[in-house]
Amino acid sequence: MDRVPSKSGIEQAHERIKPYIHHTPVLTSGSINEIAGCSIYFKCENFQKIGAFKARGAMNAVLSLSHEELSKGVATHSSGNHAQALARAAKLMGVKSYIVMPRTSPEIKKKGVRAFGGKIFECEPTLAARESALADVINKTGATEIHPFNNYEVIAGQATTAKEFFEEVRSLDSILVPVGGGGLLSGTALAAKYFSPNTIAIAGEPAGSDDAYRSLLSGKIEQAQSDSIADGLLTTLGDKTFPIIRDNVKEIITVTDPEIIVAMRLIWERLKVIIEPSCAVPFAAVLKQKSKFNGKKVGIILSGGNVDMERAMKLFATQQ
Amino acid sequence: MDRVPSKSGIEQAHERIKPYIHHTPVLTSGSINEIAGCSIYFKCENFQKIGAFKARGAMNAVLSLSHEELSKGVATHSSGNHAQALARAAKLMGVKSYIVMPRTSPEIKKKGVRAFGGKIFECEPTLAARESALADVINKTGATEIHPFNNYEVIAGQATTAKEFFEEVRSLDSILVPVGGGGLLSGTALAAKYFSPNTIAIAGEPAGSDDAYRSLLSGKIEQAQSDSIADGLLTTLGDKTFPIIRDNVKEIITVTDPEIIVAMRLIWERLKVIIEPSCAVPFAAVLKQKSKFNGKKVGIILSGGNVDMERAMKLFATQQ
Repeated sequence: MDRVPSKSGIEQAHERIKPYIHHTPVLTSGSINEIAGCSIYFKCENFQKIGAFKARGAMNAVLSLSHEELSKGVATHSSGNHAQALARAAKLMGVKSYIVMPRTSPEIKKKGVRAFGGKIFECEPTLAARESALADVINKTGATEIHPFNNYEVIAGQATTAKEFFEEVRSLDSILVPVGGGGLLSGTALAAKYFSPNTIAIAGEPAGSDDAYRSLLSGKIEQAQSDSIADGLLTTLGDKTFPIIRDNVKEIITVTDPEIIVAMRLIWERLKVIIEPSCAVPFAAVLKQKSKFNGKKVGIILSGGNVDMERAMKLFATQQ
Repeated sequence: MDRVPSKSGIEQAHERIKPYIHHTPVLTSGSINEIAGCSIYFKCENFQKIGAFKARGAMNAVLSLSHEELSKGVATHSSGNHAQALARAAKLMGVKSYIVMPRTSPEIKKKGVRAFGGKIFECEPTLAARESALADVINKTGATEIHPFNNYEVIAGQATTAKEFFEEVRSLDSILVPVGGGGLLSGTALAAKYFSPNTIAIAGEPAGSDDAYRSLLSGKIEQAQSDSIADGLLTTLGDKTFPIIRDNVKEIITVTDPEIIVAMRLIWERLKVIIEPSCAVPFAAVLKQKSKFNGKKVGIILSGGNVDMERAMKLFATQQ
């Protein structure tokens, strides 16, 4: 796919990946609705394969390759959920995956990649080192790069989350997702436009890495800072995700780390669901701007649940 | 209902309560299956209204009362999830609920009951004090007692969990639930017999309060001890639940507190779902007797998620 995903492109992506992904449940909580002053529906992609929506985009990208491309394998650089998602998709297709990871990545993440047969190449923890290591791997293997978000097949795959959500919950007033590189946000905005045009797509973003917020204001891609506990969202938008977001997303709400922690804990305690800090950002945005959502029907995509128990407890302890 | 629930009795209960309860999702986890050596399906009643399956039984009991009975309200003594479940059911029907609670009950539980308009009567934390306080309340108000488990309408309501589970996941080899007073276990065993006769109903029970295990051996109701972190399961079987269990449950597997904590943490970390200690007991039983379940299709009802974050962390810390 060399252009912005169309309606039928997203429909085809959904049919393509269905056998390989979970249809995740939508949960609600009376006590959360009371606290928030609106009716919130949570689409639980933290229960998705590999614990995050990333399973969708990587699967769609791999399934869209030709036999010849597939035979040489796939490659990416990622320290996060996309690494596991791509290794899993490759394994399901019986092909190789080459994953460039910073040598500082937690052992648990490397283990996750290896469990799906991914071959890891370690590099220094800088973007330059990662890109050069990836170029090397691709040179040697002929593998196809599957970028974590700046890839139309990946965007179409992530868009299936919102499509599935709209099929289950009709007439949402708004749908909120977190924004990092913009794969989920651009896919969600497209899905809203095609499948639920009265639903407004809104993003939550950490104030300590508010590049998407600033990019919408300036009209060009601004660089991310990295000052937030929401470690999945410290990425700069790409040249494929930014235009889609610019054209289809009206609003990005920024939230502070303490606001993220409050939201994360409420979801643990009231919804009984484990989410990672990045995943709490949209709910934090709703709590921050209650009057905007008052009495509305609000959809939130819970993006992932890959958090270390000890880390979560340390975060909660900062609240006391 | 003055006799053991029939197949149609459970079907009617399900139709009756459907508008008032969540149809809870079933989750699976590849990594949990790998650890356990079998295919486990988790029915998430921790996402049920009030955070536990108890919402079903109380709702069915209240909906089964006559108008005259209803008009005088309902009463129970409970320090746990049934108190909230009954207050909620009464509120939905627009009638009063009177809840006798030990004065030592945590404030959060009292708050939960009050949030549903339940009127609390505090008493000393002994069974005798609770029963005498309840008799007083019933004398004064004419309210109908709804026992937490020793009540056929409650049993029929709890049975709808397994019925719903069997409708979604076919041909389970076994279904596991925790046992305290035996409401969920007796309902589950009846549902298996009526709706999925090839599925074996098995209970998990804390070794420190193994009265149901001993009752099956001796053929009469044995008294519960109270030495386990699984605080929802420290109850003795009733004269209505015991015979059903005796006739329909072949096996009860006991597990120690450290085994419960390991199982609880695995479900938090791998399934991304928050459960209380009592709720981890059936999964602990599967892990303890892996060879028995090897390669099988196993259903587990996750009974509830009402646990304090601090308490959970203290339990996990004992593992280190």
